[in-house]
Order: sequence, then structure tokens, then C-alpha cells
Amino acid sequence: MEQYKYIRMGHGSGGKLTHDLVTDLFLKYFDNEMLRQQGDAALAPAGAGKLAFSTDGYVVDPLFFPGGDIGSLAVSGTVNDLAVTGAVPHYLSAAFILEEGFAIDELEKIVRSMADTARNAGVQIVAGDTKVVNKGKCDKLFITTAGVGLLEERLAHIAGGSRVQPGDRIIINGFAGDHGIAILGERESLKFSSPIVSDAACLNDLIAGVTNHYDIHFMRDATRGGLATVLAELAETRKMGVTVHEEAIPVREEVKGICEVFGYDPLYMANEGKVVMVVPEDQAGDILAGLQNHPLGRDSAVIGSVTEKHAGSVILNTEIGGQRFLDMLAGEQLPRIC
Amino acid sequence: MEQYKYIRMGHGSGGKLTHDLVTDLFLKYFDNEMLRQQGDAALAPAGAGKLAFSTDGYVVDPLFFPGGDIGSLAVSGTVNDLAVTGAVPHYLSAAFILEEGFAIDELEKIVRSMADTARNAGVQIVAGDTKVVNKGKCDKLFITTAGVGLLEERLAHIAGGSRVQPGDRIIINGFAGDHGIAILGERESLKFSSPIVSDAACLNDLIAGVTNHYDIHFMRDATRGGLATVLAELAETRKMGVTVHEEAIPVREEVKGICEVFGYDPLYMANEGKVVMVVPEDQAGDILAGLQNHPLGRDSAVIGSVTEKHAGSVILNTEIGGQRFLDMLAGEQLPRIC
Repeated sequence: MEQYKYIRMGHGSGGKLTHDLVTDLFLKYFDNEMLRQQGDAALAPAGAGKLAFSTDGYVVDPLFFPGGDIGSLAVSGTVNDLAVTGAVPHYLSAAFILEEGFAIDELEKIVRSMADTARNAGVQIVAGDTKVVNKGKCDKLFITTAGVGLLEERLAHIAGGSRVQPGDRIIINGFAGDHGIAILGERESLKFSSPIVSDAACLNDLIAGVTNHYDIHFMRDATRGGLATVLAELAETRKMGVTVHEEAIPVREEVKGICEVFGYDPLYMANEGKVVMVVPEDQAGDILAGLQNHPLGRDSAVIGSVTEKHAGSVILNTEIGGQRFLDMLAGEQLPRIC
Repeated sequence: MEQYKYIRMGHGSGGKLTHDLVTDLFLKYFDNEMLRQQGDAALAPAGAGKLAFSTDGYVVDPLFFPGGDIGSLAVSGTVNDLAVTGAVPHYLSAAFILEEGFAIDELEKIVRSMADTARNAGVQIVAGDTKVVNKGKCDKLFITTAGVGLLEERLAHIAGGSRVQPGDRIIINGFAGDHGIAILGERESLKFSSPIVSDAACLNDLIAGVTNHYDIHFMRDATRGGLATVLAELAETRKMGVTVHEEAIPVREEVKGICEVFGYDPLYMANEGKVVMVVPEDQAGDILAGLQNHPLGRDSAVIGSVTEKHAGSVILNTEIGGQRFLDMLAGEQLPRIC
């Protein structure tokens, strides 16, 4: 790779340059037995239970932002999509679409960040692909990750939420809206009194700590569309009501402030390290305490509950004593957030 | 969807418009139980044997070409990557990166084509993602598919090629270079005496017909980089020689002609429905006959063999009686071919 500083069309040819890129860069950082075989598909041990399979494309702009980059985001996003089903994430694939002329040292930073994030989460990147398009035909770099995990049968109900019932408590593992504001701040060169950092993180360890000891009736990570969209989808699909209390929802003062200036709602802001859990009323206290003992759950809070009333709708009790409905995000609040 | 003719930024928001796009378009065509759950990850039955896992990004230009489109290509490419390991492909994911303003009816054509291709191949598209970038930030549409298959232990040696030995015969299931020339022809508006159509096809059925009855020592689909690159990689990784005979390699006269005009080599042209098999000498005749009985293998041919001599290199015996080395594709022959 030393002789190349920038991506050339030939790096996507499937020939010698692709071979060099894979060997000198991807294998260097993602090194593992399955990837080393360089076959057309990774071959991994299968097992009992269910297979969880997920994919996400990443087009975040800018590529680097406080608290992460497109690489850490691409890994943690797919890890989280698997983890919230109750599955243990094992294997990831990563497909790169690169713009001709993209700097190899930026690519290397991103690949290293993916490798670090994967290692810390205990997952392996076992398959990949690289395509290059002419300058101007894509914006620097897009990454699509897919992931495979294994799910114990006893947890298979979580993804569908079949056990969700009135009285269940709703928990979030910390502050809402940090990722969205971190991206916005970077894009608009905003100055913060205390810096807002993306919450991008792999939640599989935090989640396993709960699923190994307690019941979870439903989980979802609150990414694009934010906390409000997750709650609205829950109410709609389970045909129950959801009530949440604004004062109980952790939102940083700086995030509230920026949202006011730009006319955004923090409850619709994207997060990349936040999971919404629906848990039995009688276990909510223990689960909350457990979450607060984890580095990624220190600011966890019970924010509301599932109700029989106003089925299909989410009601927010506001801090000033009013009520309003929370619907799914309409239109686009902030594009290319992930 | 009726109220929208073109992709808007909001279709990638994760909110209401994304929800509509998923429900009205993707679910409509890809409909299956796992996708209908609309969870963060698809949950599928796991099984014995090994898990095969693969991904590919598709950036082909133009999106529609004789014999296929980016959708059929994205499905068949990943199906083939799994199938050549000996695995039975089961599940696919599809992540779309869309340019703002892309026509919804074009997207629908592509999605329908993916659904048809998947159905014919017996695989299900069980997970997906949609991102939208501002106009000018990507070229119309990129699709990244990932796939999961299950591999019987008895076939687990194929991907690594551990049983490849001198004397083994090399077979290709038909004409080399059709896909590359079909794309080139469409791009350059070439007139052909008889039209060249992409060979894009799912090879899992053809391959299973062989693996169920015969030994295969190695398989790979000859996509980017073409037949020559597959052979060069085989020779390099197995540290054996490979000899192939130009007159035995099926190449259409029109493909040869166009390649001459443009200065391309058909052996480096991309294919999207061609598998290279390395098989035991004593089974080569039966395997060839079996392949020729399949619609996707009618023009199959034995094109050469594995040798002890010139280890690590591929020698082509040319039609005019000479010899030349075939190395991996250097640089880029034809960009955005897949």
C-alpha cells in the first residue's frame, strides 16, 4: 500500500490492486482465521437456537465526529441491531463503496477504528467487499455492515414484543439526542460550553447483563427517528398505549439548548448507543440498578409505562403539565446522521 | 407511496416516510414472515454444519442492462458467493443507498427484479436498510447485499481448496466475458450482430447438482477480474501450476471481436453467472456431462488442469501455439461492472 496515497479505480477492480488493499489494509486490521481464508464467503460454526441477521448502510457526514467515526458507527450500529433482539452478535461483514481519490490514510483510520470497536465488542469482521466509483459519484466513503448472531430460544419473544403488557415500565440507558447533536455541532462548527460527544457504542455487553438475569419484554435501539419513533412504533405494533414523562427522560441541557435554537426535538434526535427496554413492573427497579452499574448505563432512567388506555398512541406528559402525542418522525430532521 | 414519485431525503429518516417505503415497496415484494416482523434483525432457524456469510456492494452503471439490472445482480452475486463455498444459500439482506430524487418507479422495478431473482433461487430477503443522500452525493442507487447459508461439513474443504492436486481438471460452465461486454455495449451504445446478454444468474441449483453427486476440490465464481484472476489466485494460494488452453475456453466470437476493438482481454472480463470448478480427473467427464444437462451449464467445458510444474503460475496455451502467463488483473479493465 505504501506506493498509493489515494484510492484508484483499480482498487475496486477485483484484481491485483484489490488484492493488495485487502491484504495490506483490511486483513492487517480485521485479522482472523475466517477472513484469512479469503474465500467468497466466511465459514463459521453454526449452533443451536435462532440465527439473527441484520444490515445497515452508513453514509454519515462528516466521516469523523466527536466520539466516533463512520467505522465505529458501522460496527456498533449492526452489533446493536443484533443485540436488541436478544441475540449474541458474533460475525460482521463490511462492504466499502469508495470514491476515487479518497485518501488511504483516512481509510486506514476508519478501518482501524472498526477493528478496535469490533474487538472491544467481542465480534469478528469475517467478510468484506470493496467497490470504487469515479470521483464525484459518491461522497468519499459509504460502509454497509451486516451481522450474524445467535439467539437463545428463551429470548426469541423479545424482538416481536409478544409479552409486552399494560403496566410494563419503559427504560432508556441514558441521555437522548447526543449523537444527533454531536454530528450537527461538527457540521455547523458549533461551540459548546461542554463538548457534546456522540454516544455511539456497542450495547451487547450491557444488554446481555440484563437478559442473563431478568425478563425483557421488548427492546429496540433508538437510532434514526429517535426515542419518540421507537415508542410510536411500539404503541402501533402492540396496539397498546405508551405514556412517558418529559421530566424523566434524560436530555442534556446543552442538547436541549441547541435543539431549541435549530427547532429540533431531542426526542426525535438520533442516538447510536441508546436502547429502549420494556420490562415487567416488578423487575424495573432491579434492572435499572443493574444498568446503572454498567459504564454505558450510568444515566439510565425509567421514563414511562405501557398502558391499556389510548391504545396505539404515545402520550408525553410535558414538564409544564401538559400532554402531547408523539408520532413517528415525519419528514427528515437531520440527514446523513448515520 | 402513490403520493411520491421521487425519493425524498425523508425516505431515509427512519421515521414515517421510511416506514411507508418499507411497507409499500420492500415488504410488498420481499414479503416473508421474518421480514414482516420488522425487527432490527431477522430471526431465522439455525442448523447443523457451518454458517457461510458473505457480502457484496453493487454500483453497476447503467442500472439496467441486457440480461439484468442492479437488483438481479445484487441477489445473484451474493447467492453465488455462498454457493461456491458449497453452502446452500438461505437468507439475504439488502441495504439501499439512494440519491435524493431517484424515481420511485425505477426503484420498484429493481426491487421487483430482486424479489423475482430471490424467489427463483429459493432464498429469502429477510433484512434491509435504506439510506438517502442529497442529490449529487451518490450516483442514483447503490445496493449492498449480504447472505447467509448453511454448509455441510463434508463440503467444508471446498472453499480452501485443500484437496486440489496435480491432475485435477478445470471446468467453466459456459462462455467467458458476456457480462462485461453486455455492460460495455450498453454504456457505449454498441450495435451487435447478435445481442450480447449478461450471464447474471443464480448458480446455486447448478452447483448443488454437482456437489450432491460428485467431488469438487475447489470452486469460485469468476466475477470482477474474470476467469484469469480466479486461476491466478488458485495457483498462488495452492502453490501449484495451472495450465489452460485458449481454444478450449468458451468465448463468443462477438465478445472476442469487441475485446479486440477496445483492447480488452475476455479472460479478464467480469462474469456474473460463471463458476470455475476444480474436479478430480476421473470424475471430470461425468461432472461435465451433468453440467451440460443444466440450463446454466449447456456450454460447460474442461479448459485445463492443475500441474506440479510452474507452481504458483498460470500458463495459457494460445490458439496460435504459443504460451503466456496469466496474472491477476492489474489496474482496472472496466469500472463499475457490478
